Formats: sequence, structure tokens, C-alpha cells
Amino acid sequence: MKLYDDTRAPNPRRVRIYLAEKGISVPLAPISVMTRENRTEAFKKKNSLQQIPVLELDDGTCIAETLAICRYFEVENPEPPLFGKTALEQANVEMWNRRIEFQLLGTVGAYWRNCHELTKALEGRIPEAGEQGKKRAEYILNWLNDDLEGRDYIAGDNFTVADITALCVIDFASFVGISIPETASTLKTWHARVSERPTATA
Amino acid sequence: MKLYDDTRAPNPRRVRIYLAEKGISVPLAPISVMTRENRTEAFKKKNSLQQIPVLELDDGTCIAETLAICRYFEVENPEPPLFGKTALEQANVEMWNRRIEFQLLGTVGAYWRNCHELTKALEGRIPEAGEQGKKRAEYILNWLNDDLEGRDYIAGDNFTVADITALCVIDFASFVGISIPETASTLKTWHARVSERPTATA
Repeated sequence: MKLYDDTRAPNPRRVRIYLAEKGISVPLAPISVMTRENRTEAFKKKNSLQQIPVLELDDGTCIAETLAICRYFEVENPEPPLFGKTALEQANVEMWNRRIEFQLLGTVGAYWRNCHELTKALEGRIPEAGEQGKKRAEYILNWLNDDLEGRDYIAGDNFTVADITALCVIDFASFVGISIPETASTLKTWHARVSERPTATA
Repeated sequence: MKLYDDTRAPNPRRVRIYLAEKGISVPLAPISVMTRENRTEAFKKKNSLQQIPVLELDDGTCIAETLAICRYFEVENPEPPLFGKTALEQANVEMWNRRIEFQLLGTVGAYWRNCHELTKALEGRIPEAGEQGKKRAEYILNWLNDDLEGRDYIAGDNFTVADITALCVIDFASFVGISIPETASTLKTWHARVSERPTATA
């Protein structure tokens, strides 16, 4: 088994933190997105969308999509539960993970692809779409701050995969120039709480 | 328990089909997005992002996000499994469901919001972003057609929630003017197969 990984991308980091929280060790196979190693024909056979991360099982079966990879390990190794246990907990984790992905990763990603200096060589950039994404991301960071009031973690009282998603997305947002607003004290406290976990540097 | 629903939107349809496949009956509470009933303060208390569908439990707890609602019912009523059973099956369903959402629903939605006649009153439309979404959606429909070759359903040999997502997204795409390409015969055969299930009209 091996995990195709790029240490500079936010999604592979989500899997690395998830595995560290579970205490699972998986060999990493580095793939540099910057030098387009994911664009080779060989890698296309592993994931026809050519995205990372990808988990390759011992029989060659490949699983793409960050959450699908985490889900695979969650079924095989249920403890500690990072997707919730009861029906309501599992629904809450799913809801929050998706909100962070669709509302924040999607909008930060739009800014990254369309406006950032490091992606200026990409074809078809639409700066206006990037700026719209940034504006929405900033709205969502404030919305998340307000919603988090009164609980320690994104989906409730326990650390879950939704916290991993939010940590990686918010750190990526900060990297591309969209920081947690100064006034968002609840979100800042949460960010400090999850950042000091030993797994955050996985 | 009740499900806030709009019969004209693609995401609530996904939940209705899912429930029909499970043989679960949940009272529907209509919310018209067109007349902005989801924008009221009362509805904001149920989902602060003001999106539908929302499942309200008997104690008033609300679950937003289509897949989170389906996940809630899947844990409570595991049979027939619509999220897969083994770790690999569950990972595959998750992978495929996400691919359809991120690659197809996201891009079709961009075209819908930015270019369609029925959304012309929306603020901040960026036609170029909509056209880019349409182009990507058309690419993905062909990619999906090629990938589907040799299997009956989106995530393998069994009908799953990934088929429900794909059916609702592809029908929505067709409604907004992005049809399955004429040459995509595998995808057309799949579409006919899932459309003739009695639940498709739920």
C-alpha cells in the first residue's frame, strides 16, 4: 500500500493528518504537482482525473479523493472514530466537512487558481471569479466564527475529520492571502487548539 | 421529522430518490427557492447557509447537506446498502459521489448561476466563468462515459447513492442546456437504466 502525496498541497495533508490521528503508517510516494508529475500517462492510470492524493492498495487498486481515502481507513480501523459514531454524529461530521469543502475550499481554490501569482501560467484564468471567491471565503470565515461559538470542534465536542479539513483549508487560505479575520476570535481559538495537536505537522 | 424540499431543485430530489430506494417515508415541507422562502429568518435558524434540503428531526435538530441527510438514514437503516458495504466499496462510492459533485454539479451550477436566462436577476454574474463551467462539464460527461465502459453503475456493479447524484445532476444539466453528448452511448445506456427505476420520479 502507498499514498501518492505532495507535501505542498492541502488535500494530501488532510490524509496525512488523518492517518497520524489514527496511528496508521502508510508509505508516501511523492508526486510533484508543480513539476506536473501528476500529468503523466502512468499517473493517469491511477487516477484518470490526475489529482492527488491517491491511495494504491497492494493489488494495484487505486482510490482517489481525500475523503474516500479516509473513509477506507475509517471502515478498516474504526477507533478512534473521526467520522462520528451515532447516526446524528455521522451526519453532523458529513454536513460540516462538506460545508468547509464547498463553501471554503471551493472559494479559496477559485482565488488561488484565478488570482494568485504562483498560478499565473494557468490557462483561462478569470480574475473576477477569483476575487468573487475571495469575498465569499471571507464571508464564510466570519460565518464559521459565529457558528463555532460554544463548542470546541467544528462538528461538536470531538475532534473529527471536519476539523482536519478546516485546518488544512484555513492554512491553505492563509498561504494564498485569505487570513482568519482579526475579529474572528472564536475561530482563532479553535485554530490554535487544533494546530497544537502533534498530528498537525504530519 | 420532516424534510424541507423544493421539487424543482436537484439536491432535494437526491434525498427523495434515496428515501424511496430505502422505502422510508418522510413528510415533505415545501420551501420555494424561486420565491426566496429559504431566505427568511425563520429558515435561517434551521440552516444558517439557507440552502435546501434540510432534515428536521422531531426534537428540532436540523441536518443540512444532501449527503449528510442520506448518511443519517444510512446509519439508521443500513439495508439495502446505498453507500457500499466493505471498506473498498464504501471508498468507491464516496470517490464517485464526490467526483460527480465536484466535477459535474459544480461546473453545471457555475453555468446555471452565471449564464442561464432564469438566473439573470442574480447579482455578480460572470458569464465567462459560466461558459468555462459548461466546457468543463462537457469534458467530464465524455470522461464519465469512457470510464463507465464495462460496468452497470457509477461506482461498480450495484446501484448506489453515486448513481442518484449522477442522475439528478445530469438531468439538471440537461435542463440548463448541457446534455449528454450524442456519442456518449455508455452514459446514455446508464442514464436509461437508472431513469427507468420507479424511484426516479420520487
